[in-house]
Amino acid sequence: MQWRKVLGRVVGAAALLGLGIILGHFAIPKGANPPAPSASASQDLDPEILETIMGQLDASRIRENLRELSREPHLASSPQDEALVQLLLRRWRDPESGLDSAEASTYEVLLSFPSQEQPNHVAIVGPSGTILFSCRQSEENLTGEQGGPDVVPPYAAYAPPGTPQGLLVYANRGSEDDFKELQAQGIQLKGTIALTRYGGVGRGAKAVNAAKHEVAGVLVYTDPADINDGRSLPNETFPHSWHLPPSGVERGSYYEYFGDPLTPYLPANPSSFRLDPATASGFPPIPIQPIGFEDAKVLLCNLQGPSAEADWQGALGCDYKLGPGFEPGGMFAGSQVNLSVHNRLELRNSSNVLGIIRGAVEPDRYVLYGNHRDSWVHGAVDPSSGTAVLLELSRVLGTLLKKGTWHPRRSIVFASWGAEEFGLIGSTEFTEEFFCKLQERAVAYINVDISVFANATLSARGTPPVQSVIFSAAKQIPAPGPGSLSIYDNWIRYFNRSSPVYGLVPSVGSLGAGSDYAPFIHFLGISSMDIAYTYDRSKTSARTYPTYHTAFDTFGYVEKFVDPGFSSHQAVARTVGNVLLRLSDSLFLPLNVSDYSETLQSFLQAAQLYLGPLLEKHSISLGPLVTAVEKFERAAVALGQRISALQKGTFDPLQVRMLNDQLMLLERAFLNPRAFPEERYYSHVLWAPRNNFLDTFPGLASAFLRAIDTDPGSAAWAEVQRQLSIVVVALEGAAATLRPVADL
Amino acid sequence: MQWRKVLGRVVGAAALLGLGIILGHFAIPKGANPPAPSASASQDLDPEILETIMGQLDASRIRENLRELSREPHLASSPQDEALVQLLLRRWRDPESGLDSAEASTYEVLLSFPSQEQPNHVAIVGPSGTILFSCRQSEENLTGEQGGPDVVPPYAAYAPPGTPQGLLVYANRGSEDDFKELQAQGIQLKGTIALTRYGGVGRGAKAVNAAKHEVAGVLVYTDPADINDGRSLPNETFPHSWHLPPSGVERGSYYEYFGDPLTPYLPANPSSFRLDPATASGFPPIPIQPIGFEDAKVLLCNLQGPSAEADWQGALGCDYKLGPGFEPGGMFAGSQVNLSVHNRLELRNSSNVLGIIRGAVEPDRYVLYGNHRDSWVHGAVDPSSGTAVLLELSRVLGTLLKKGTWHPRRSIVFASWGAEEFGLIGSTEFTEEFFCKLQERAVAYINVDISVFANATLSARGTPPVQSVIFSAAKQIPAPGPGSLSIYDNWIRYFNRSSPVYGLVPSVGSLGAGSDYAPFIHFLGISSMDIAYTYDRSKTSARTYPTYHTAFDTFGYVEKFVDPGFSSHQAVARTVGNVLLRLSDSLFLPLNVSDYSETLQSFLQAAQLYLGPLLEKHSISLGPLVTAVEKFERAAVALGQRISALQKGTFDPLQVRMLNDQLMLLERAFLNPRAFPEERYYSHVLWAPRNNFLDTFPGLASAFLRAIDTDPGSAAWAEVQRQLSIVVVALEGAAATLRPVADL
Repeated sequence: MQWRKVLGRVVGAAALLGLGIILGHFAIPKGANPPAPSASASQDLDPEILETIMGQLDASRIRENLRELSREPHLASSPQDEALVQLLLRRWRDPESGLDSAEASTYEVLLSFPSQEQPNHVAIVGPSGTILFSCRQSEENLTGEQGGPDVVPPYAAYAPPGTPQGLLVYANRGSEDDFKELQAQGIQLKGTIALTRYGGVGRGAKAVNAAKHEVAGVLVYTDPADINDGRSLPNETFPHSWHLPPSGVERGSYYEYFGDPLTPYLPANPSSFRLDPATASGFPPIPIQPIGFEDAKVLLCNLQGPSAEADWQGALGCDYKLGPGFEPGGMFAGSQVNLSVHNRLELRNSSNVLGIIRGAVEPDRYVLYGNHRDSWVHGAVDPSSGTAVLLELSRVLGTLLKKGTWHPRRSIVFASWGAEEFGLIGSTEFTEEFFCKLQERAVAYINVDISVFANATLSARGTPPVQSVIFSAAKQIPAPGPGSLSIYDNWIRYFNRSSPVYGLVPSVGSLGAGSDYAPFIHFLGISSMDIAYTYDRSKTSARTYPTYHTAFDTFGYVEKFVDPGFSSHQAVARTVGNVLLRLSDSLFLPLNVSDYSETLQSFLQAAQLYLGPLLEKHSISLGPLVTAVEKFERAAVALGQRISALQKGTFDPLQVRMLNDQLMLLERAFLNPRAFPEERYYSHVLWAPRNNFLDTFPGLASAFLRAIDTDPGSAAWAEVQRQLSIVVVALEGAAATLRPVADL
Repeated sequence: MQWRKVLGRVVGAAALLGLGIILGHFAIPKGANPPAPSASASQDLDPEILETIMGQLDASRIRENLRELSREPHLASSPQDEALVQLLLRRWRDPESGLDSAEASTYEVLLSFPSQEQPNHVAIVGPSGTILFSCRQSEENLTGEQGGPDVVPPYAAYAPPGTPQGLLVYANRGSEDDFKELQAQGIQLKGTIALTRYGGVGRGAKAVNAAKHEVAGVLVYTDPADINDGRSLPNETFPHSWHLPPSGVERGSYYEYFGDPLTPYLPANPSSFRLDPATASGFPPIPIQPIGFEDAKVLLCNLQGPSAEADWQGALGCDYKLGPGFEPGGMFAGSQVNLSVHNRLELRNSSNVLGIIRGAVEPDRYVLYGNHRDSWVHGAVDPSSGTAVLLELSRVLGTLLKKGTWHPRRSIVFASWGAEEFGLIGSTEFTEEFFCKLQERAVAYINVDISVFANATLSARGTPPVQSVIFSAAKQIPAPGPGSLSIYDNWIRYFNRSSPVYGLVPSVGSLGAGSDYAPFIHFLGISSMDIAYTYDRSKTSARTYPTYHTAFDTFGYVEKFVDPGFSSHQAVARTVGNVLLRLSDSLFLPLNVSDYSETLQSFLQAAQLYLGPLLEKHSISLGPLVTAVEKFERAAVALGQRISALQKGTFDPLQVRMLNDQLMLLERAFLNPRAFPEERYYSHVLWAPRNNFLDTFPGLASAFLRAIDTDPGSAAWAEVQRQLSIVVVALEGAAATLRPVADL
């Protein structure tokens, strides 16, 4: 088979590259379940098993999974969502291809839904009170899948009910600066309805920023310039192309935090303490509703007032004006916009499904791999493209397991999270419930949400220690499509950076809070990664794939436009499977902690360059930070040398375990639950939100920004000093974790 | 030797008792340093080595240590304190009897000292401004050791400077209730000087409570009723007996938290962020000064006003009146009391000394054993009696180590903490600096502060998992003095309780914040214990040993009155050595986690009995707590069974390590850094302060107390529900830690 030859060559190349992680290969116990661990305490990654798994991951089965998963809309907590819980349980309990065990665990969480009796409604109301125009209440039924009671109408989850009415203004992306700009232009904002477009800032932020200016309600739409590379005509869009049709509306959660809103830091068990929803924070302060660009065009292209600046213009085919109100000569002269939102908060049951393959040697070390299950509508891309891959990988591993061909060294935990779309709720509740156990035992968390955005290249985010294992995997797998490049060699063509240590390498992004990895990295300090196949960014400027969170994200859409043949899905399955197996089976954990040094150096240099001069004026020295980074680097290098030396000599499993514990727990050393008390769950001092200001230590950057206009000796400058100390202490603690364990 | 025979018998008895902890004994590697760990991965506790160590712990060497340690006053950060740092380093680096390595680490911490130029002063000032009486500024020089520049005059550390003057009132122990009682009696408190006696509430609380009533300054003395069993005459007290002389004054820290006051949650490194001392919290709000009972008698026995109630009376030989002011007919008629405090806050260097014996098999598991080094004056009892024991134990172990006779399985860390007297500062800064490393790797912390209060019996505090290992040790060692009882059998005569599981056992107290174990248990969740020899409580009601924190706590005092022959010191050394070796060398960790079940059951029953009815009225169910306690119990029992089964069969070192990790990390599962935000460092949901109200879950009890007078639906009742959820989640997390590691 051609594929096998390619793989063989790539494997050979990877071996030549010699990452030094795979060591002596010992026999894998067969048959016994669980096998006697003493027989295999030195069990290492088996390249043959890895090759077998790569070979068995089947594109057509991923396609079938996707068809089944996306057959019906499966909004969180809906009967269809619950049906998928049962599907996952059946698969993971299958006697031929299932896992060692599988369970569903259910939380009682606060979700938000539009009212069925009183649909949300956006209308232009004439001076006499007549409705002159109504926006669509649902998307156009183009493929027969956009209708029916299970398609939730477009809405802004967690937006409060209300029926504000006022003059329309156009507020670009609804950022703080956008509203300030309107104010500067003399546009009266009080009592208006602000039309905004998606992008720039988070969904909820648009309402938060608007409310600060006494705006009464907010509309959001997706501009064809931002999603369709400008195309907006029906015959240019789905089902004629992959572009968003004029009636398509992005649904989404407008909640500002993540996790169940009523049970911060506590698992949402039925008996758990719950906040009063009336006093819970993080919900949009004013009504907000998303609409399609077809309707947005009617509103926007009839506005009066000054023309918006070039940056604010979009692709609706008219000059975007700012308002307030419609042009006097037009059909809506003197009209206002009425926004009727009737969303309701409801306590609902939402389940995670967890499946485990018991580690044969170190069952108390967990490699977690998860994706959410809930969608907004059919969710073929989001999230079922990920779940389809998850199921195929669990099938292949489960089959080897049930045959007794293979048992991983460490435990593998598969997770299907519930209610991610409402704010990473299932995964967050899971981390709250098992905080202690996970903090002690989790080796890494792998997230695949949308597995395929597009067919161009692999894309990965993660903390520095996972870079090397993703690279190792990507070098071993052929890229889909013509040519014989590896996924790695293809990837480096699209996203790359110049590393001071390695030269040109694919660039691995950092982890925000866009999917279920967030509680794992930010709250628990578990080395995490997010993997997908994605666009050629030189060919599209789309924010995301065009039908994101709409009723047009269907199986047909994927099959026809996103990944015909499902080879990109297969590529993701192989990459993830390869990474997963390296993490679960390698004797020495393939977490390259010294790759943190590069991040720390770049953060340090940014701090010295951009913050240093003003810090010096305020007598705040970066000297201790320089020392701490150096200490970390030295400790990481020395640990690498100890591992190499051990690999060359003789060693016993306890020695390997102790070193692996240092590697696994390094990420935990960067946690400080008291560092950012106002940022719920964010405890990782290197990856807390940075306000997009500067790629440096985030607490330091945020405190600096708040202090910059205050007097010397202010509380804000004291906080800068405190944040600096927090980073220094974390780095020194991290260095201590890496140093020889019996050093004082 | 008689002693050997006794020990032999006790060892035999202990073996018969069969605690099932010591398993198959493997050869201990000799010579190599460090030995090849692979040769000894199944290394277990060696009863012969244990017996050797018990035999070599020498009372006369402890006596010599004590003499050397207490020769000079060694107040924290003084040159004499620094000289002891060097002494410890010499001992621990000795080529014949030292440890594998030893280091001093220095923090820059905020201490408080009286001014040398302006001594603190308490005087009675007549109506015309004449000083009619002055309290002593130093203790009487009875043995030649109470004079000289290195004897710090009595003072209240961290009391603010000030020179308040006002009418004197007597306020008993200065509790909230005491001041309320004075108020109820119509005693005008505003602007007065309140005379209080030690005991009842913490030192700092007396000033805090007084300030709430606008008292201007506070005096504190030790009543002979509370310390001397009533004796107060010079010929009844030291140097004629062990009782406190009339001029003796208890010094102490009046800081309300622990750790360096300027660097909460951060190690006090020179570059660390520091709070502005003017805004730091926890200092006494008004001047306060301790005095001797000789001077207190002059003040108290001349007061006018109503007689204090019987509970408020003491042993000064007069009727205690409440004031305000002195009796009209007496020599101080119309006089006021002037209190001049000139204390200064100073940043000082204070060192910890750390010594380590590298574990031969699991160097990354630490058994810590510490005591503070700093004293108020000579500190023969406090803390040198503990340091003398520490040095003897480190000598015996170091000698075996240097000879190559023995290497522990796990690492042993000896610690000599600095600046404990000012608020557990050295130990707290250590836990802040190495939080992550310790949380991952520390098996247990053993504290011996004052090793011998008196000669009657062993006394121990600790978390439930350490009870069994203390019992095992105590059963193996003969009690000092006549008779052939073991320490255990002697102990049970003095302090005992009826355990539902074990029947009559010695009672192990719970850990407050009285010594350096506090940051280990409360902040880090490390199983901890505190061990000493102490009084026959039926023979004395003294608050502590009489010369506590005075200049009379000298070597001669110990030798003559506290422990002539040093056999109680030796008994403590043997007990601690035995516990330490069991923790460091046993293949299976001797932490009996199921002993937590008894605590949980008793907490639960107290909650059900005393809080249950009112909780029910507020619709708060204890049902989830009952379930969580049951889950914990089942998991603990099942884990015990798995350990027993493993011990009977074959096992490899990795399996033992995994089980030991469950035992070690159980205590961590009870930590929740967000449970008690107002209680600095307290994160352990079972051992946070309880306000002495009820022996139950502390957060629940405190919240209940605050809610009890509020309306249904109040925020205070919501907090009760939140605290209940916090406990339930912690217990469920603890149960998850104990369950089979590959269970979902």
